[in-house]
Amino acid sequence: MALIVQKYGGTSVANVERIRHVAARVVETAKQGHQVAVVVSAMAGETDALVALANDAAGDRPDPREYDALVSTGEQKTIALLAMAIQRLGNKARSFTGGQMGMRTDASFTRARIQSIDTERIHAVLQGGAVAVIAGFQGIDEEGNVTTLGRGGSDTSAVAVAAALQADVCEIYTDVNGVYTTDPNMVPAARKLARISFEEMLEMASLGAKVLQIRSVKLAQQYGVPLHVRSTFETTEGTWVTREEDVMERLVVSGVTYQRNEAKIRVRGVKDQPGVSARLFTPISDAGIVVDMIIQNVGQDGTTDITFTVPRADFKRAMEMAQQAGREIGAGGIEGDDKIAKVSIVGLGMKDHAGVATKMFRTLADEAINIQMISTSEIKISVVVEEKYTELAVRALHAAFVEHGAAEPQPE
Amino acid sequence: MALIVQKYGGTSVANVERIRHVAARVVETAKQGHQVAVVVSAMAGETDALVALANDAAGDRPDPREYDALVSTGEQKTIALLAMAIQRLGNKARSFTGGQMGMRTDASFTRARIQSIDTERIHAVLQGGAVAVIAGFQGIDEEGNVTTLGRGGSDTSAVAVAAALQADVCEIYTDVNGVYTTDPNMVPAARKLARISFEEMLEMASLGAKVLQIRSVKLAQQYGVPLHVRSTFETTEGTWVTREEDVMERLVVSGVTYQRNEAKIRVRGVKDQPGVSARLFTPISDAGIVVDMIIQNVGQDGTTDITFTVPRADFKRAMEMAQQAGREIGAGGIEGDDKIAKVSIVGLGMKDHAGVATKMFRTLADEAINIQMISTSEIKISVVVEEKYTELAVRALHAAFVEHGAAEPQPE
Repeated sequence: MALIVQKYGGTSVANVERIRHVAARVVETAKQGHQVAVVVSAMAGETDALVALANDAAGDRPDPREYDALVSTGEQKTIALLAMAIQRLGNKARSFTGGQMGMRTDASFTRARIQSIDTERIHAVLQGGAVAVIAGFQGIDEEGNVTTLGRGGSDTSAVAVAAALQADVCEIYTDVNGVYTTDPNMVPAARKLARISFEEMLEMASLGAKVLQIRSVKLAQQYGVPLHVRSTFETTEGTWVTREEDVMERLVVSGVTYQRNEAKIRVRGVKDQPGVSARLFTPISDAGIVVDMIIQNVGQDGTTDITFTVPRADFKRAMEMAQQAGREIGAGGIEGDDKIAKVSIVGLGMKDHAGVATKMFRTLADEAINIQMISTSEIKISVVVEEKYTELAVRALHAAFVEHGAAEPQPE
Repeated sequence: MALIVQKYGGTSVANVERIRHVAARVVETAKQGHQVAVVVSAMAGETDALVALANDAAGDRPDPREYDALVSTGEQKTIALLAMAIQRLGNKARSFTGGQMGMRTDASFTRARIQSIDTERIHAVLQGGAVAVIAGFQGIDEEGNVTTLGRGGSDTSAVAVAAALQADVCEIYTDVNGVYTTDPNMVPAARKLARISFEEMLEMASLGAKVLQIRSVKLAQQYGVPLHVRSTFETTEGTWVTREEDVMERLVVSGVTYQRNEAKIRVRGVKDQPGVSARLFTPISDAGIVVDMIIQNVGQDGTTDITFTVPRADFKRAMEMAQQAGREIGAGGIEGDDKIAKVSIVGLGMKDHAGVATKMFRTLADEAINIQMISTSEIKISVVVEEKYTELAVRALHAAFVEHGAAEPQPE
């Protein structure tokens, strides 16, 4: 007998028919003798509808406390309906709001952080043979105010519940059946991964694979909660996200990811002296713009070029700030390009495997794709290329590393 | 400065536009220097939609705990939206669910009874200059489960909050502008009452005037909370419901009410011996059928006739039970009639005024309306007549007692 936490997202509970389908899956798991806690999102569309009402009632900026009080009702609807649907199948069930299960958070409305979970009541319900049906995305602060964890917070709720209950697994049910080596819509040869490490999943998530929220993967890694990403609509195994040591088949490259909608800014001929970077980047980060890659080349004349990337949506604002800063620090010139993309390869095996970068650059060169910027981590290499080469680069890298490279044996 | 509780029903908050209208009224009251707590229902149609979802998810009988967890989200939406709309007008506001305001009830889901209210948090909010926006209809039990008070429970919530806060008045905003001497749709000469006593209001409510829930009037009477029934859409004074001693203009008859959808059953030739009534009525009340009037005539041959009325919807079931019981107690026969109506006159002044019943019977006789049954209380006389005479009887009684009778001076 295992203790299993299952999480179903908004599309999985979009209407009563789907809620009844979810109930059937839950009961099937319970009938196998497992204890089951289910964490659910609001029915698809519900949160958007509530947000629209809020904007209508409040004007542009709804009060955060009242905003959370409002949108949290979405998940409350789902838990009651799912509990009913489970009961209809003859299984006991009991719903829990964030407050009822003691999901304590700080008081940062709309983006609260979980502080603790009181598992006593849930354990009692599970031990009594009932399914605990838990509202994701929400908690309460010290004063009993309803808080929400921010959009997509239901994944985080599920992992936090699994960690607190010391569950054997946290199953994340979604509309795809696992984590793929790359975007299957772009590369038909993409294949589903059986297992992937937390580290790889984090890199892939932050690089644009939208299966899991980064925050929930970090939490799972921190508490060692095995995640199982699988489809609500199929019964096949999905992808397990686990500790590195539990990943048997250690691939050199597990995945190829891409991010369009990037832009880069180059500040030329800056005097190479202390404080220059701070003067350039402080206003940009103060404006909430996330700078991703930064490259600095020192020339022989004592000046330096600084090149960095920002989301394309922030390009115009960032350019204005760079021009302002450029004047003040006496830069030689500012250039911008918002037609770039970032393509990355991710894999644990890179650590032990020389020549991965060389092979990546050669693969792209063979396709006559020019590399504009490079950044690396222990298990990732990212390059910036002209946006129009995105698909070509992804296909070539997937072919070189995943389709032909997967069989390479790894040293233990 | 007064402490005012305002209650707005579902039609008053049916959409965001109306919620903003309510917000304007609330802020207007606050700007006059009053402390304001507002109790609201779910947006019109919301509860019905939630109930439909429940039936869809659960089949015929949703679990009462989960049912309450579900339908209570309707009021939670309204409080957050109304708080936002009030804030938009520059006034502070804070929403409270039943749980957050400490509205403690017993654990009778779907028809919970209020046990206590923790007013500390609300007083703190009011003293801080904010409007407290409170979810009607809901509470929590000892274990933190969400409970609901039953349909129309928002009136009861409002009165309970007013009693707990020792408010100066509980204003009930609705889509009519007060309590009328009779149904204005039936009698154009009906007029709005300026004041009415709790006792009269109770009789009129239980006789079919739908302005206020009986339960809320009883509670207001118990705690001496003055009610002011008025229109959400007009600013004119409505009707005050107060203690008898505060009703200045003490009318002989304050109102004429009627109830269609009644049925009567007559059990003839029953032996007049102990236990016969119990044998007849026990199964009927066990089936949840409310018996209203009961009349028993003892004949000279030692047998008796028992006649009673039930709601027309329960007529068929009640007839079957009466027939079964009739066989067992050796009744002479069972007759039923589901084409009857009950017409009543209500007024505090009857207590001191002889001849009211006589005048009522004469008025009906003048219209050739046959009286089938009569029941009386200190401040009410009800008669059962053929249903087709309902309107005629109401108009005649209203003309005799209200239009021409209102001016009669009363002894102090």
